[in-house]
Amino acid sequence: MNYFSSDFKLGILGGGQLGKMILTETRKFDIQTYVVDPSTDAPCRFGATKFFQGALTDYQTVLDLGSQVDVLTIEIENVNLEALEALEEQGKKVYPSPKTLRLIKNKGNQKDFYIQNNIPTAPYKRFATLEALKSEVKNGSVNLPFVWKATEGGYDGNGVKVVRNAEDLNILPQTECIAEMMIPFKNELAVIVARSASGEIKSYPVVEMEFHPEANQVEYVICPARIDENISQKARQIALQVSEAYNHVGLLAVEMFQTQDDEILINEVAPRPHNSGHYSIEASYTSQFEQHIRAILDLPLGNTDSKVAGIMVNLVGEEGYSGQVIYENIEKIMAVDGVTPHIYGKRETRPFRKMGHVTIVNENMTEARKIAQQVKETIRVISK
Amino acid sequence: MNYFSSDFKLGILGGGQLGKMILTETRKFDIQTYVVDPSTDAPCRFGATKFFQGALTDYQTVLDLGSQVDVLTIEIENVNLEALEALEEQGKKVYPSPKTLRLIKNKGNQKDFYIQNNIPTAPYKRFATLEALKSEVKNGSVNLPFVWKATEGGYDGNGVKVVRNAEDLNILPQTECIAEMMIPFKNELAVIVARSASGEIKSYPVVEMEFHPEANQVEYVICPARIDENISQKARQIALQVSEAYNHVGLLAVEMFQTQDDEILINEVAPRPHNSGHYSIEASYTSQFEQHIRAILDLPLGNTDSKVAGIMVNLVGEEGYSGQVIYENIEKIMAVDGVTPHIYGKRETRPFRKMGHVTIVNENMTEARKIAQQVKETIRVISK
Repeated sequence: MNYFSSDFKLGILGGGQLGKMILTETRKFDIQTYVVDPSTDAPCRFGATKFFQGALTDYQTVLDLGSQVDVLTIEIENVNLEALEALEEQGKKVYPSPKTLRLIKNKGNQKDFYIQNNIPTAPYKRFATLEALKSEVKNGSVNLPFVWKATEGGYDGNGVKVVRNAEDLNILPQTECIAEMMIPFKNELAVIVARSASGEIKSYPVVEMEFHPEANQVEYVICPARIDENISQKARQIALQVSEAYNHVGLLAVEMFQTQDDEILINEVAPRPHNSGHYSIEASYTSQFEQHIRAILDLPLGNTDSKVAGIMVNLVGEEGYSGQVIYENIEKIMAVDGVTPHIYGKRETRPFRKMGHVTIVNENMTEARKIAQQVKETIRVISK
Repeated sequence: MNYFSSDFKLGILGGGQLGKMILTETRKFDIQTYVVDPSTDAPCRFGATKFFQGALTDYQTVLDLGSQVDVLTIEIENVNLEALEALEEQGKKVYPSPKTLRLIKNKGNQKDFYIQNNIPTAPYKRFATLEALKSEVKNGSVNLPFVWKATEGGYDGNGVKVVRNAEDLNILPQTECIAEMMIPFKNELAVIVARSASGEIKSYPVVEMEFHPEANQVEYVICPARIDENISQKARQIALQVSEAYNHVGLLAVEMFQTQDDEILINEVAPRPHNSGHYSIEASYTSQFEQHIRAILDLPLGNTDSKVAGIMVNLVGEEGYSGQVIYENIEKIMAVDGVTPHIYGKRETRPFRKMGHVTIVNENMTEARKIAQQVKETIRVISK
């Protein structure tokens, strides 16, 4: 297949920042792209060959995009799966496959799938309704505390809650859910796996999420994780196993916990480029976005090693500010060696909105970590 | 000044591959861009906020673009300088300045400028007409052989010729020219200098052009150049001196010779991102294209060091092929670690047309050089 400066067309469902960073790579390779997003103001409005406005959950919108392209991919999971299934049935290449997307979309299905495939994950129970969960808590079959997760619709921490007492149960929404045993862990880790249509598979180095000591928010995504080599090998091995089990094509971001006993437990997966892989643009031989393109077009996968240590800091809208965005002190952080801001292209900031990220690269991890903290303490995403 | 996701607009004269690689950076920073190019099919037709078709040598076209933007830059030198001068007079920021562009555009002026500023360059004589040159050759004031250069209009080796005998003179075009003494050299080198509007200045490492042993064509651009550290320091020092002398703002690519006696002589300069800096996208902490943006917007300059060794191979249309392009064996080179093709987005190939480039990066220069040769011998730019 000839992809480069040809009539070949790649469709992308979703035109947010992940799509925008995919477009950087399709432009580099001069691959034509058709993108659809609900917002006419989406970050992908520039850089695509054609950009359409439409709802990703709408059957006809997805079918229409799919029928204009040769290969279809996603940058967000919440898309109309029935349309993807219909397209696949017609012989269209859809990566990741709607079957995998369906398994991943529901966290109950995800957990069941790990058990069926001997993939280590925290013990859990699945409940069709909130009432069913409540009655098992009442009769003592589920012990407090536990982690409640809605099986569908969660994102960025929504749909997840630690339940410590009976009152906590009362504020949960009415929905299918799981109750997961709380496992004390040393580290939250992630591994990105790339798997191509013909089955070539590679994992990226393990990254580590460093949390703010009080706020319990991820502050830094650090590559490579500061963990023992044998733990790192185990984590990469399990991540490969997960990708193979799903028969996944494209990128799969595998989030996991390193327990106090150095067990690796899968938390959840995302079937696309992922926040935990943004560091790769500056630090890796092959960025996650280029790798995604390589995988879904069945091109050879690129080297996943890093050239240098990389740390990523998210730029999120500061509390108390809404409206036209200002990146305060951005010039100050740009004066520091190895600091690259990525601005996603959203005009309006809101509290906690993901507006961009900053990558810090350095030959030396300790130095990179010091600079990352300086960056975090300097730049502010506020409004006019 | 607030550039990021703001109303600020950068104008770019020229929409070719250099412009396209600048747009990758303006997209990363979400800076608005207005681009004009003679071809509606130019590589910059995607990725710019607005793209206009128009002649870059047309006064009104340049004036119109300039009056819509806050800062104006170029990706090609052959633009209407009178319009740039008028815009500058109106207070518009134009980088590089039309004054510098005028000095650089004419190779006679370039040479005179080096002499006036004590910048080492090969001895030369300047002639208003071909006839004037011929008569000095005849009367023995200019010795054969020498290098003839048209003072204006040359590009990619056009407008340059080695004159070995009287017959060679007869095929030269009627134009202002210089005759330059032929100096045997060990190496052809280049240094890219970035200088910001407020005068911050940085040089990139020295790169080396490796020529094909028979064809006398540049085959590889290699960074860092395989030369002694003291030669490298001297070359970077002279390059900084040239940029300062021109009071240049933006990128200046300084091409030079290392003579048999290890003198450094300036050959010529280009006031923009340059083929000799393409390696920087993958190899450097700050790519030349990001650096150009930083310089002309008076942002702090980024680190010019390399993360790894980098080699660049141009992808030019093969002789005997014209029409819709095919990159034969591109999958084979993509299977090799550290190999990244850049496809400029020209649908039609022609003999010797610049269609793209390939960067090879590796921790080890010897390994990079071996892979570069493999790339060169594998990929072919042909037509359907």
